[in-house]
Amino acid sequence: MEQYLGIDVGGTNVKMGIVDATDGRISNFYSHDTASWRSSGHFIERLGDAIALQLVEYPEVKRVGIGVPGLTTRDRTTLIEITAIPEIDGIAIVPDLKLRFPEHDFYLENDANAAALGEYYFGEDKLPEDYIFVTLGTGIGGAAIIDKKVFKGGGGNAMEPGHVPSKNGKVLERNIGKKELLDLAITMRTNYTGQTQLPSDGTISTTGLVAAASKGDELAMQVFQEMGYLLGEGLVSMIRILDITTILIGGGISASFEYILPAINERFEYWLTPYYLKTITIKRATLANDAGLLGAASLCFD
Amino acid sequence: MEQYLGIDVGGTNVKMGIVDATDGRISNFYSHDTASWRSSGHFIERLGDAIALQLVEYPEVKRVGIGVPGLTTRDRTTLIEITAIPEIDGIAIVPDLKLRFPEHDFYLENDANAAALGEYYFGEDKLPEDYIFVTLGTGIGGAAIIDKKVFKGGGGNAMEPGHVPSKNGKVLERNIGKKELLDLAITMRTNYTGQTQLPSDGTISTTGLVAAASKGDELAMQVFQEMGYLLGEGLVSMIRILDITTILIGGGISASFEYILPAINERFEYWLTPYYLKTITIKRATLANDAGLLGAASLCFD
Repeated sequence: MEQYLGIDVGGTNVKMGIVDATDGRISNFYSHDTASWRSSGHFIERLGDAIALQLVEYPEVKRVGIGVPGLTTRDRTTLIEITAIPEIDGIAIVPDLKLRFPEHDFYLENDANAAALGEYYFGEDKLPEDYIFVTLGTGIGGAAIIDKKVFKGGGGNAMEPGHVPSKNGKVLERNIGKKELLDLAITMRTNYTGQTQLPSDGTISTTGLVAAASKGDELAMQVFQEMGYLLGEGLVSMIRILDITTILIGGGISASFEYILPAINERFEYWLTPYYLKTITIKRATLANDAGLLGAASLCFD
Repeated sequence: MEQYLGIDVGGTNVKMGIVDATDGRISNFYSHDTASWRSSGHFIERLGDAIALQLVEYPEVKRVGIGVPGLTTRDRTTLIEITAIPEIDGIAIVPDLKLRFPEHDFYLENDANAAALGEYYFGEDKLPEDYIFVTLGTGIGGAAIIDKKVFKGGGGNAMEPGHVPSKNGKVLERNIGKKELLDLAITMRTNYTGQTQLPSDGTISTTGLVAAASKGDELAMQVFQEMGYLLGEGLVSMIRILDITTILIGGGISASFEYILPAINERFEYWLTPYYLKTITIKRATLANDAGLLGAASLCFD
């Protein structure tokens, strides 16, 4: 039974665990707060200590996958810009760890890219080897998986779906990121004269929006329709540039999936030709809380 | 001295020649009209005969690159849809030719993709290993080269820059393809009250537009400004999705390059962050008439 060590380096916690390559079961889960390692001034050493403890307990594990919240070099050896943990910017983390653990192999990737790949190996649905993964949250993130590998593009940091041009001279995530979505909902609420359960005091939440839409609230549905429309337009550019027709939607606001879907599909029908439409598939990502850790472990597959 | 046989299969002529891998010099150039091979009912056999003649004269040539005007399978063995030569749709051209020439290797690619790659090996300028190539003509075509290879994307037919969403609910090439560009110029001419050398009788040509712009004609410059604006917006999406910052502009209407450039740059400045702007480079493609043949030969490089 093949097992990998998956490590999800986050701004709040660093989570790790031994992942069964067959079924994604996580053993020996360990979480440590990021702040104390940062303030120690020896983040990588502390991380190495935690890795050592895992590897002592699981000597048969030879591969370690690491997801980080930021930019890495194209060869995936070195951290470039980890906004939440700036102390480790510029560190050649893969060679450094290899020096300490010469018998082991380390695989580094941006965390959103890793989470996208995790859907292939550990997701509920059988996926094709090529798909686009978009996360809806504070920002609009994403990745493309091509041939079961993270698509790096030219410079190594391909797929910034949140930053493609969108409506009103704004990039996509400045139109439908979490804050912008709520601003839109508040504005539409102000101008709305029909029946709605959305509050008029500026306290609309994304959870409230989804709950209202699920009860058929017309205004909440209109908000998600606008979101789906703009997301759909952005997806069309990605589909045309990457020739990929399976789309996975993840992130916290993907709870709105069924309410944004009709407008996305309407945009697909409008812009795309039969070559794409005959195979187009859009669905929700299936990994939830463990997406980061499982994504990191998925980097260890050949 | 390594030499390859390059073959540019076009709707009007099939051109071939022995290409010196070092300097792109073409020997033994041969062109045959496409129509008579089509009407023979044995297009691939006639093509094979012409290849045989080349290879008899150049026995040291072992690799043959073929560019075709249409879609191929992702593994680049088989023709899917060659609109100008529908008789050969579905033919497994690479294995078929390999059967006849077992000592030789054949490399198949879409002609625009091949032309893009040709710029790397035979263009005047030293290019990086990753760049976006866009052709301005009747349509807006293109390719991306990543790691010195044609980027295939998921389904094998990536990079349709002409088909990304653009202004007024139209895809890019329905706004700035040749016909649309002339329609735009004619409309702008009708509404224009200033001095211009553009004719008012609906006979504006692209050559005339470029000539007028080169003499500082205000209206011609405005037309190209609009074209550059829309092209720039489309390029931004490609840059964000592919993380590539070198852009090559080819095709017949790239004669307008210096007139569309200011608006493209303005759009880059507007949409892109320093990460991209610090390396962004946009220039004209350098291969002209032989782009197809040299592009085909460039498929033979490792």
